[in-house]
Amino acid sequence: MNQVITRATLATACGSLALLGLGFTSCGGGNPTPSNTSGSTSGSSVQELMSARGLSEADVTAALKTYMPSGKKDEYVIFASGGHGGNVITIGVPSMRILKYIAVFGPEPWQGYGYGDQTSDLIKSGNLEGEDLSWGDVHHPALSETAGDYDGEYLFVNDKANARIAVIDLKDFATKQIVQSGLIESDHGGCFVTPDTEYVLEGSQYPAPFAGAYAPISEFQSTYRGAMIFWKFDRSIGRIDKSKSFAMELPPYMQDLSDSGKLATDGWMFVNSFNTEMAVGGNMEGEPPMESGASQNDMDYLSIINWKKAAELAANPANTSIIAGMPVISIETAVANDLLFEVPEPKSPHGCDVTPDGKEIVVSGKLDTHATVYNWEKIKGLIDAKDFVGNDTFGIPILDFEKSIRGQVEIGLGPLHTQFDADGFAYTSVFIETVVAKWSLKDLKVVEKLPVHYNIGHLMAAEGDTVSPDGKYVVAMNKWALDRFQAVGPLLPQNFQLVDVSGESMQLLYDMPLPLGEPHYAQMIKADKLHPEESYPLGTDPLTDSIDPFAVKAGEERIERKADGVHIYMTAVRSHFKPDTVTVKKGETVHMHMTNIETAHDATHGFCIGSYNVNISLEPGEHSNMTFVADRVGVFPMYCTEFCSALHLEMAGYFLVEE
Amino acid sequence: MNQVITRATLATACGSLALLGLGFTSCGGGNPTPSNTSGSTSGSSVQELMSARGLSEADVTAALKTYMPSGKKDEYVIFASGGHGGNVITIGVPSMRILKYIAVFGPEPWQGYGYGDQTSDLIKSGNLEGEDLSWGDVHHPALSETAGDYDGEYLFVNDKANARIAVIDLKDFATKQIVQSGLIESDHGGCFVTPDTEYVLEGSQYPAPFAGAYAPISEFQSTYRGAMIFWKFDRSIGRIDKSKSFAMELPPYMQDLSDSGKLATDGWMFVNSFNTEMAVGGNMEGEPPMESGASQNDMDYLSIINWKKAAELAANPANTSIIAGMPVISIETAVANDLLFEVPEPKSPHGCDVTPDGKEIVVSGKLDTHATVYNWEKIKGLIDAKDFVGNDTFGIPILDFEKSIRGQVEIGLGPLHTQFDADGFAYTSVFIETVVAKWSLKDLKVVEKLPVHYNIGHLMAAEGDTVSPDGKYVVAMNKWALDRFQAVGPLLPQNFQLVDVSGESMQLLYDMPLPLGEPHYAQMIKADKLHPEESYPLGTDPLTDSIDPFAVKAGEERIERKADGVHIYMTAVRSHFKPDTVTVKKGETVHMHMTNIETAHDATHGFCIGSYNVNISLEPGEHSNMTFVADRVGVFPMYCTEFCSALHLEMAGYFLVEE
Repeated sequence: MNQVITRATLATACGSLALLGLGFTSCGGGNPTPSNTSGSTSGSSVQELMSARGLSEADVTAALKTYMPSGKKDEYVIFASGGHGGNVITIGVPSMRILKYIAVFGPEPWQGYGYGDQTSDLIKSGNLEGEDLSWGDVHHPALSETAGDYDGEYLFVNDKANARIAVIDLKDFATKQIVQSGLIESDHGGCFVTPDTEYVLEGSQYPAPFAGAYAPISEFQSTYRGAMIFWKFDRSIGRIDKSKSFAMELPPYMQDLSDSGKLATDGWMFVNSFNTEMAVGGNMEGEPPMESGASQNDMDYLSIINWKKAAELAANPANTSIIAGMPVISIETAVANDLLFEVPEPKSPHGCDVTPDGKEIVVSGKLDTHATVYNWEKIKGLIDAKDFVGNDTFGIPILDFEKSIRGQVEIGLGPLHTQFDADGFAYTSVFIETVVAKWSLKDLKVVEKLPVHYNIGHLMAAEGDTVSPDGKYVVAMNKWALDRFQAVGPLLPQNFQLVDVSGESMQLLYDMPLPLGEPHYAQMIKADKLHPEESYPLGTDPLTDSIDPFAVKAGEERIERKADGVHIYMTAVRSHFKPDTVTVKKGETVHMHMTNIETAHDATHGFCIGSYNVNISLEPGEHSNMTFVADRVGVFPMYCTEFCSALHLEMAGYFLVEE
Repeated sequence: MNQVITRATLATACGSLALLGLGFTSCGGGNPTPSNTSGSTSGSSVQELMSARGLSEADVTAALKTYMPSGKKDEYVIFASGGHGGNVITIGVPSMRILKYIAVFGPEPWQGYGYGDQTSDLIKSGNLEGEDLSWGDVHHPALSETAGDYDGEYLFVNDKANARIAVIDLKDFATKQIVQSGLIESDHGGCFVTPDTEYVLEGSQYPAPFAGAYAPISEFQSTYRGAMIFWKFDRSIGRIDKSKSFAMELPPYMQDLSDSGKLATDGWMFVNSFNTEMAVGGNMEGEPPMESGASQNDMDYLSIINWKKAAELAANPANTSIIAGMPVISIETAVANDLLFEVPEPKSPHGCDVTPDGKEIVVSGKLDTHATVYNWEKIKGLIDAKDFVGNDTFGIPILDFEKSIRGQVEIGLGPLHTQFDADGFAYTSVFIETVVAKWSLKDLKVVEKLPVHYNIGHLMAAEGDTVSPDGKYVVAMNKWALDRFQAVGPLLPQNFQLVDVSGESMQLLYDMPLPLGEPHYAQMIKADKLHPEESYPLGTDPLTDSIDPFAVKAGEERIERKADGVHIYMTAVRSHFKPDTVTVKKGETVHMHMTNIETAHDATHGFCIGSYNVNISLEPGEHSNMTFVADRVGVFPMYCTEFCSALHLEMAGYFLVEE
């Protein structure tokens, strides 16, 4: 039967293969793909590999959907918070390979971050209390948006522990600015941005007296407060302009997550809250622990804020009080000007997610089994008609729950966070049940649940919180890993699970361990929206995006003694520093000015002085200044810490401190 | 033709598929693998996926060789140095997923490392000059060995910048000890261990006067020195015993890489060197830069040291000088006692790798095109016969190059580092040519070169530097990434490339970006040799591996005021801290004693006090102490930083500081 094969013969053979459990093989037709390397080098058939490695058909599909061939680029990029790692984690999708940790709130020596004068000052710049902070708790990254869609230009992240906001420029994936309002002690519902990134939103988490003041816990209700900070972003300079920012006082509930309205809800924002009981713990004194005290009420409140009107109002100093330099709209003023409303939300709410069309807001209840879908037309109708059911303790008008919602989705135990796809479906993470629930926005019915491993916190969908979600991928951000990976001691990685949502059913594609940091929240952007630069103009200080006044050109290296100490103007280029020998006197203040004069992409040099804790990393064209006192006599090797060339080990010299 | 298929029909169909470029499909026979999920959920055939994603047959093979299905464990674990990231990177093979960053020489807030009193003191413990160091430059990890094979118990790493060695226990993947000899300012040829981990070897890199002394650079030859430190490891306590450690003075060449002998060479060790020219740079003063000055000689020296005899000798104080508390065998004593020899090695040598049988030593030359294979039988014969060609400047006997080698392998431009497989092949990284060269140990001929992307530094093979290499996998540790990954700004990740060496030809399987750190060197161990624990006995201080004297049991929480301040005995358990409210007076010294009383695997809690830079991470059973002064009045939220439960956000309280 060594004959020319017919379509019918092939079909039959394929049918047979299907019977052998191999129905996923290449019998589906389509154009042949040319072989670009010899299959004989590996000598293994799909069948043999499946057998040898115990792969199922679904595994083979998942492997082929996630594998990135050498040199090929991922389709999406995730920006995930690093939790109390204090950083941002950049991940390629679908390969789930970590591309870069971006240092933000703490020093990171590989990037030289927090070691040169500039980045050291940056880290110190946001400290409310004057304490030198060396970490942050990054929760919610927000990509900059234009018309409600990611534009790939900037990323904003919060530090929950110290109520700070950082600006990262995606031109160089570097942290540029850290700000603190001076008002609040912790934050959670940030960062979220308004549709054109006019404002970066930062909601407080745990109430405290404003501006670092002291008040006993007994004065919780009278003196402790929450707030929503509206940070004005100036895109022309890529920085937050604190002078044009303002805040709104909120009740001492624990504000949770925020979202900005868009399209139908443009100009408004939403922030949920828990602990409207205003419990303060006291478990050593016989009171119920916080988690019980804060979970008594069946309903807490979703706050609804007219930020556009608030911004107009805040522009007039008569309408605000200046606290710690920040104009603050009081609750009283907010209520009097129809800026602030509340609607009940069940129970211990988490997640506050505006649908792509901006018409609805989805809120889940950690101790509820539903996602509640609030309808903006209904809410706006009640607000316009001043149809309230009463006021809360602080005088804020409350809308009727039933009149504000379109309905509720029966999700399961412990729903938390919702994102959206392009086909009218929502995806909600369900912590206790440990599944991703897919449900129809149209009829508010769950259509599928996918088990995840284990106990999903947040999730993200591809561009899933913009005005035009892509669908395709959902990532479950699981908090417990347990048996998923090779054991690495008591402290386990987290587990991100990539899910294909392009088909009729969800398919779990990939388990990805998170080796450092505890991601809470993430956004996933189409990779082709990112256009980072390959190098800096020679002598650039990345913090100012301009040529540093102390930048050094080739041939202008020198050592100068001035009134303020010894200035060393040094260049780095493969494979030497110039000067390569520096001798100073004990006690001299040393000002190192170093420029990496490389122009080649990826020609990074590190520079360190052993035992002096001097360590920087200079990308091509980058300049850094380092100031320190040569307070110890001795001979200290200085060398390049980045393997740059065949003679990298010879890229060294000596820093000598004589008596 | 809808008939029962015959083997011949199937073969024909398969032949046809092969013609269609799909010869790798499952037609090769073998047992069918049952489908464990419905193929219809994904709805994509291999053919369709290949076409849609542009995958070649080799890509499909690579995908199926590297993909780890959800919940399945990797076969090998890599321990890679993090360079000036100061950490160790743990990676699963073949998936190339990063499992954990282990903090070593600098603070890392996710792990709480460097925040509690114990780990803060640990980081400070190794500082030669008294400076508070916050980073290290980790170059060479060494797994503990038993009879020359990895035993999976401990990992040792060096800090090149500050000449420190750290001990990591693989029971909990945690750093336990950091030591500094007090002698040298930088190291490179460490860590390497003797075959039963009797000693951990640390060779210096850049010569300096011993013990932090000052001498002008003009006294380089007379006063600057290198050294080899022999750190005694006490396996019974899992710590280095500095009191039983010793050092050997070496010339002021720049010592490079070391390796311990094994089997045939047991009792001996080897360390290569460059800059036997003793160039010191001076490029501002018209001298050639270091990389030129250090590359004049065609030959440098490989040092050969009899460490067993040296250890016996060092046990008698009469044979050593005590410098900075460390017994040091002088060059003179070493020569007089036949402990130290040299043999020339071409040119700008790098890599010093003993073959699995211990009979040969492979050295490459960065500016040479060869790997040189030294033969121990020949070397030992010359040593025993005292057949020397002369002495170096420092009186060290020199062996004849030609009489010491078995031969040289023509490798290519810029060979660096060699590891081995189970079938008699060696794999050498070739930096300038940017390939992995596979060559036969038997006939010293290159059999294959595989291009890598780009400029490989070191490489590793599965257990490839033990007495019994596994073969299977080689990983190229490339220094330049360029076009490999989605761009993430001027600072690029490194690129590890996984290579399948189990077939006749090497197959590149996977590109893995390194998102943090600059790995120099790594070892790859069979995963089943690792047996980490899941939790700690309640109240454990991981640094002492014992119950902390301040450990807190459930029900014994309390606040006590003592002469040295206020002691807070606190427990953490889902979902509260007890006590959850703490009030202290301004100026009080606060001693926090906190035990995570969870016993469940993965039930980690974090604890922070906002604005006070207090941040720890407690794994189940772990205890930590934190001391700080309450120097600022105010209300500071304290909360759990690790998403631990549905009511994690409610796991919070207040730390109040009153005037």
